[in-house]
Amino acid sequence: MRSLNEKCAVVGIFDHPEASKLAYFSLHALQHRGQEAAGISTGDGEKLYTIKDRGLVTQVFDTQKLNTLKGHMAIGHTRYSTAGDDSILDAQPVFARYDLGEMSIVHNGNLTNAKEVRDALIKKGAIFQTYMDTENLIHLIAKSDQHHLTDRIIDAVKKIEGAYSLVFLSRTKMFAMRDPHGFRPLSLGRVGDGYVVASETCAFDLIGAEYIRDVEPGELLIFEKGKAPKSIKVFEPTPKHCIFEYVYFARPDSNVYNQNVYEMRKAMGKALAQEQPIEADMVVPVPDGGVPAAIGYSQQSGIPFEMAIMRNHYIGRTFIEPTQEMRDLKVKMKLSPINDLIRGKRLIVIDDSIVRGTTSRQIVRMLKAAGASEVHMRISSPPTTDPCYYGVDTPDKEKLIAANMTNEEICAFIEADSLGYLSNEALLASVNGKEENYCTACFTGKYII
Amino acid sequence: MRSLNEKCAVVGIFDHPEASKLAYFSLHALQHRGQEAAGISTGDGEKLYTIKDRGLVTQVFDTQKLNTLKGHMAIGHTRYSTAGDDSILDAQPVFARYDLGEMSIVHNGNLTNAKEVRDALIKKGAIFQTYMDTENLIHLIAKSDQHHLTDRIIDAVKKIEGAYSLVFLSRTKMFAMRDPHGFRPLSLGRVGDGYVVASETCAFDLIGAEYIRDVEPGELLIFEKGKAPKSIKVFEPTPKHCIFEYVYFARPDSNVYNQNVYEMRKAMGKALAQEQPIEADMVVPVPDGGVPAAIGYSQQSGIPFEMAIMRNHYIGRTFIEPTQEMRDLKVKMKLSPINDLIRGKRLIVIDDSIVRGTTSRQIVRMLKAAGASEVHMRISSPPTTDPCYYGVDTPDKEKLIAANMTNEEICAFIEADSLGYLSNEALLASVNGKEENYCTACFTGKYII
Amino acid sequence: MRSLNEKCAVVGIFDHPEASKLAYFSLHALQHRGQEAAGISTGDGEKLYTIKDRGLVTQVFDTQKLNTLKGHMAIGHTRYSTAGDDSILDAQPVFARYDLGEMSIVHNGNLTNAKEVRDALIKKGAIFQTYMDTENLIHLIAKSDQHHLTDRIIDAVKKIEGAYSLVFLSRTKMFAMRDPHGFRPLSLGRVGDGYVVASETCAFDLIGAEYIRDVEPGELLIFEKGKAPKSIKVFEPTPKHCIFEYVYFARPDSNVYNQNVYEMRKAMGKALAQEQPIEADMVVPVPDGGVPAAIGYSQQSGIPFEMAIMRNHYIGRTFIEPTQEMRDLKVKMKLSPINDLIRGKRLIVIDDSIVRGTTSRQIVRMLKAAGASEVHMRISSPPTTDPCYYGVDTPDKEKLIAANMTNEEICAFIEADSLGYLSNEALLASVNGKEENYCTACFTGKYII
Amino acid sequence: MRSLNEKCAVVGIFDHPEASKLAYFSLHALQHRGQEAAGISTGDGEKLYTIKDRGLVTQVFDTQKLNTLKGHMAIGHTRYSTAGDDSILDAQPVFARYDLGEMSIVHNGNLTNAKEVRDALIKKGAIFQTYMDTENLIHLIAKSDQHHLTDRIIDAVKKIEGAYSLVFLSRTKMFAMRDPHGFRPLSLGRVGDGYVVASETCAFDLIGAEYIRDVEPGELLIFEKGKAPKSIKVFEPTPKHCIFEYVYFARPDSNVYNQNVYEMRKAMGKALAQEQPIEADMVVPVPDGGVPAAIGYSQQSGIPFEMAIMRNHYIGRTFIEPTQEMRDLKVKMKLSPINDLIRGKRLIVIDDSIVRGTTSRQIVRMLKAAGASEVHMRISSPPTTDPCYYGVDTPDKEKLIAANMTNEEICAFIEADSLGYLSNEALLASVNGKEENYCTACFTGKYII
Repeated sequence: MRSLNEKCAVVGIFDHPEASKLAYFSLHALQHRGQEAAGISTGDGEKLYTIKDRGLVTQVFDTQKLNTLKGHMAIGHTRYSTAGDDSILDAQPVFARYDLGEMSIVHNGNLTNAKEVRDALIKKGAIFQTYMDTENLIHLIAKSDQHHLTDRIIDAVKKIEGAYSLVFLSRTKMFAMRDPHGFRPLSLGRVGDGYVVASETCAFDLIGAEYIRDVEPGELLIFEKGKAPKSIKVFEPTPKHCIFEYVYFARPDSNVYNQNVYEMRKAMGKALAQEQPIEADMVVPVPDGGVPAAIGYSQQSGIPFEMAIMRNHYIGRTFIEPTQEMRDLKVKMKLSPINDLIRGKRLIVIDDSIVRGTTSRQIVRMLKAAGASEVHMRISSPPTTDPCYYGVDTPDKEKLIAANMTNEEICAFIEADSLGYLSNEALLASVNGKEENYCTACFTGKYII
Repeated sequence: MRSLNEKCAVVGIFDHPEASKLAYFSLHALQHRGQEAAGISTGDGEKLYTIKDRGLVTQVFDTQKLNTLKGHMAIGHTRYSTAGDDSILDAQPVFARYDLGEMSIVHNGNLTNAKEVRDALIKKGAIFQTYMDTENLIHLIAKSDQHHLTDRIIDAVKKIEGAYSLVFLSRTKMFAMRDPHGFRPLSLGRVGDGYVVASETCAFDLIGAEYIRDVEPGELLIFEKGKAPKSIKVFEPTPKHCIFEYVYFARPDSNVYNQNVYEMRKAMGKALAQEQPIEADMVVPVPDGGVPAAIGYSQQSGIPFEMAIMRNHYIGRTFIEPTQEMRDLKVKMKLSPINDLIRGKRLIVIDDSIVRGTTSRQIVRMLKAAGASEVHMRISSPPTTDPCYYGVDTPDKEKLIAANMTNEEICAFIEADSLGYLSNEALLASVNGKEENYCTACFTGKYII
Repeated sequence: MRSLNEKCAVVGIFDHPEASKLAYFSLHALQHRGQEAAGISTGDGEKLYTIKDRGLVTQVFDTQKLNTLKGHMAIGHTRYSTAGDDSILDAQPVFARYDLGEMSIVHNGNLTNAKEVRDALIKKGAIFQTYMDTENLIHLIAKSDQHHLTDRIIDAVKKIEGAYSLVFLSRTKMFAMRDPHGFRPLSLGRVGDGYVVASETCAFDLIGAEYIRDVEPGELLIFEKGKAPKSIKVFEPTPKHCIFEYVYFARPDSNVYNQNVYEMRKAMGKALAQEQPIEADMVVPVPDGGVPAAIGYSQQSGIPFEMAIMRNHYIGRTFIEPTQEMRDLKVKMKLSPINDLIRGKRLIVIDDSIVRGTTSRQIVRMLKAAGASEVHMRISSPPTTDPCYYGVDTPDKEKLIAANMTNEEICAFIEADSLGYLSNEALLASVNGKEENYCTACFTGKYII
Repeated sequence: MRSLNEKCAVVGIFDHPEASKLAYFSLHALQHRGQEAAGISTGDGEKLYTIKDRGLVTQVFDTQKLNTLKGHMAIGHTRYSTAGDDSILDAQPVFARYDLGEMSIVHNGNLTNAKEVRDALIKKGAIFQTYMDTENLIHLIAKSDQHHLTDRIIDAVKKIEGAYSLVFLSRTKMFAMRDPHGFRPLSLGRVGDGYVVASETCAFDLIGAEYIRDVEPGELLIFEKGKAPKSIKVFEPTPKHCIFEYVYFARPDSNVYNQNVYEMRKAMGKALAQEQPIEADMVVPVPDGGVPAAIGYSQQSGIPFEMAIMRNHYIGRTFIEPTQEMRDLKVKMKLSPINDLIRGKRLIVIDDSIVRGTTSRQIVRMLKAAGASEVHMRISSPPTTDPCYYGVDTPDKEKLIAANMTNEEICAFIEADSLGYLSNEALLASVNGKEENYCTACFTGKYII
């Protein structure tokens, strides 16, 4: 039912005897960032090994496959996809043989000059076998005049624009690189005697790794056996962190941009209570996304928090058509109201965002049908008015309800008694941030690149 | 990880053109009561049709199969099972041909005199092809001297003891029967121009049915085309409702024994706050079971509610062995703490019950490792000291930690800073009940039969 | 494409440390007798263990499952089925608990008085949970007045009529029984220090067993640990062996009724050449069934044998509709002619039987389209005019082409240049048999029972 | 069990409204040339569409997928593979975007200068994402200085050496090209108003196409809408057809190099009878490969043909370990002797080739154990002494038994009473060929390139 989707997660493990296994569990912790495909490349100092396929991490890998992924270093990827049957071709890691040997690469983010770069490369005789931006990078590296891979990577990233949190394997080294704006998160940790990089710190918690610091925007980290990771400042950092990671994408138990996601969301809820107060009987989250903000709203307003909408865990896929008695079946299969609790009550319903408005309307209708006397929708982020070009799958602008309707119109459309959004200023304040350090383009249309 | 499991759900649909489809969705809503097998029998006035198999409801049935389940009446079953590969044989409905024609039956509960009845039947030449209590019933009906099925059902249930919420199909009628103590729930509703019975009312909500009343303990309901359901009081009702339905089994959005489950759990949490107060920084539920009680505890005590333990939805099955860095992997795959939120904090952790104690210990350890300064475990029910013989899968008494340790010993075992249970009296008060109307045998050892 | 199907295979293993494994491989060798479901029961002297499911033997069982089938004795079953989704309920072995303990049974054949027996049993209060004849037997055994199982089995089989090759397990013994007419085959062999019974001797070859003799019609064999098998002549043998086992069902490498199937088929082909000679350029079998008879026909007639129709092994299931260029797609997916070999040639095509005539017509058309100048169809058995009631799945009489058309009409229908069947007398002579010892009801309509 | 494997099949369909469906069925007919992966690309004049995956043709495609493969032209590929889990990356067609737009290509054969070409391309900055030779070709086309695709293809194939039967799609055209030696087969046919090219003519028969002629060695065919196919003689033809297509790879119902495969095999059998006569009781093929040659041997020698080894069609995969009674289980699961037929008899066993010798030994042992008094192995091709570099998967030379043992040693190894191969001269004569027109490198070590 969700309309905005993070496109991927990346991980890297360096210098650990069970690198493929650590990559596997790290990807498992990051499964929420992409459920369509998963892949791991490993290296043993001689050769790279790659397995990738459609499916969840637990479906793609088993003990036997992890055992064939030999070596002390590993990179991994999970992927969200809107593509068709052929999408396996677009799974990562992307592996290539080129003049310096073998490399494998994983990428979270989206390049904004991908088409220009690709066209220029194609003009010079390059062929593109996938539809992934990432393929640009291996071409740029392969075609660079520099003699050393490190220099080539620097060369290559200077030619690309947009969002990228990258992890590379060469025959003997691992590299991690984040774009100068640090659009997407990437953290560095320590596991056993080795290192780990991952999109979110929840991966560290599962594998028993210890957080060190974030990879800096514009920083290239080089991992070489027997040495401390070497840092090169490729670009001057000009942070423009994706604020939507705090709003919705990241797991609440992760620290992203060095702050805890749950606490950020709770702060948004508190700010929302201040900006968009309303008299009511209870504060109700749309689970699971709205829970921390609802707790914050409740604590700030003093209105009791109630888990009045239940999330059903046994959904599975059903292709059975409903009968005429069944209304709102699709949403009800996933979410159900506690009728007795809400009958005759005034509800403040907290959700993280409204994209097309259809799900919100189904929820409002369901709550009204269950007897709620008033439903006040409160959104812990500003209206989503603009698509993302930095690694999030968003609908076209004409499908974003907030790009096409006033708040009053949206309120009418979703059939709520009132509707309130968090202001962009309050959102920034909630995450202790300044406008210049965050990308808020999906709320403001101010694209950096 | 759960150690107590409800054994099944039953549903019945009468006089609806899409009976099999309504049974399918009803079972889907009741999937939490049994995930091992599912089955539906339907009847079109001429013949009965049955499909049952291992798996979730969505796995067992598809459109084509539902279409072969013809007719205007349907019964359905989902099943929990500890049995081995052979368990398909023990899926329900149980179908039989006998001297009055065909019948099919679904059963939630457990017969306490099953062995005696079976031995007596076997002595008379009966054969038993499954390990289900339910097989007793069809034998008793088939062997009864009565001429009419209604009389035979009455005959049969008078010979059995224990817990049973039953739904039968004959060629033209549907029957619903609940044991005199009403151990397990069974509600009656209206859907379209027909009727529905189901273990929990959440099934009614999904299919757009309207709750009428509970089937009474000791009541037999007979559904015949073109007539109002006929009620026969087979036994004088002596209610002994399973109180654990309120504590853990039923879905919070269901009404069971005519009261809302979520509200009962919240009341238990409030009572727990009164009986087992402690100074702390936050109240934290073990999700999802502990959430309503934790909200109640927080509201009563004024200590803030925090969702400091997150539940991971992408679990899947993994057979990959952890590395040595990974501690408490099994619990962490499912539950993760919000480290920054709990670091240095005193936590009141709310769970619905402690069965063996091992999971509770893993949770306490995980929270301590995440930095909690104190972990106070509060349980929204009394100590689970005795196994259930009325339809719940419980470990043997020697494995029930509360049957073998004092509260202090349990507290030490689970490594908590303190441990508090709700008293049986407070539990009963929370559900507005009197001791004589509820079965609390798992807490008190007072078995009715 | 085949229209006649053997309904099952049975095996029994007694006194071997790897009984379940031997049963598994025996069933694998007998897979041609039933591909819908497979099952094995074993016994260790204490308890019986059963696993059965839909699918091929290799799909139903794996190492883990075979290991749970403990004990030194095992019985097994594969099954053909026309039934629907629910057929799992009708898989064998049939297991039951009854007054003497536990038993499990497998059955090849069909009881002709099943309905009468069942109705009588039902009148006495029995319930039937499956649609298998076999269920009658366990009821009869359970209800017998005798005190010992051996006597009860004798009691039971005296009440049933029709075809049955049975193998039973009790807690400590194995029993094998064949009906007085010996309709279906059953052979006895020695494996290691134990014994094996199986529907066909090809099972013996695979597991390294040595053939001893056939179980006699009307004979009950009792296998008890530490003793030689005990034989009881329950009925005077009046053999009426199913001659269609020789014509089509049994594997050519099996010995059935103590004669080799391949050689019988070759003899039929020779006799066919004598009875139905025709001038032609080559003798061509419809593979695989027609191969041995075609070799016989060629050897007798001196007309060269050619494998001019190829069987395709990569069929798989396809649901793709053909284009208009594709004629006879269904048969061509399975069988393809060698065009250059048959162009302008006169062909004698050998098949084992014609059931509905539609497949034969497709084959003739395909050969003509490939350029054959003449196609003479020769059938190595008499016209199939009557359905089988002794364990073969045959279409209704109105669908048997030979029951409704003269040979000339059939020839015209299948568009052949000539058609010749083997006479019943020549068929009997080919298998060295006398009419009184074989059941030829499918050719003659002379039903014994 | 087979040790030599054809690496692939290719097909192309041009100007047919159901191009993807025709490609599907054509691949189905060619499934014997590769069972690991299958793929189809289509074009509608605007865009190319590709689906490829692991599995049989019937597993990879369904109606829905074929429907997404829009357009009037299609190319397809089936693939044999020795590679690991990652092999999906090496499935074909290979699709690429390059400076002239999009192209997709399928390839049967093996390039002998692949490494040199690849190294040169890599030196110029190309990246290789798969392990397929075929990737060279798209690079060469993309980097060619020519302006038109036709010229680029000519440019590219002039840089490669080895075996290639290729089919390309561009946005609007289809191209078919065969190497100057015509190592691998490729035939041209007519279907509806359009054209088809395929590795073997058996594909034509299934889809109702009419054979026109073979694509000539060195010929490039260009298919353009509304025009007759245009032929360009890129290279002077110097045919060196793979003779092993006749010996084993191709289907007997195919015409390859314009002659029927079954008849060629029969001729080999006749020649073998002349060169390697022996007194015996019967001629027995190893099914299915040895059947036509055995028929030829029998017809020439007058010794009766018998199908004394049966092929089992219900193999499936089993991981169950045999018991100690089971000898030669692996071969017996697939092939079983007709014991009664061969007991005491002298057998001439006909097979197409001996690669490692282990399977032949198992067969001889099995036949001896079944009672054969003599087993004379006759092979319808010369000793396989050298690996193939033109598109066949052969073991290393040290594993080819004929490269390391004399005929006497091989005879002793396989435990036969005598062993006879067909001479290379007789093989060539059987296929009406001259040494200079066939590649016999696997028998002679005379490599052309």
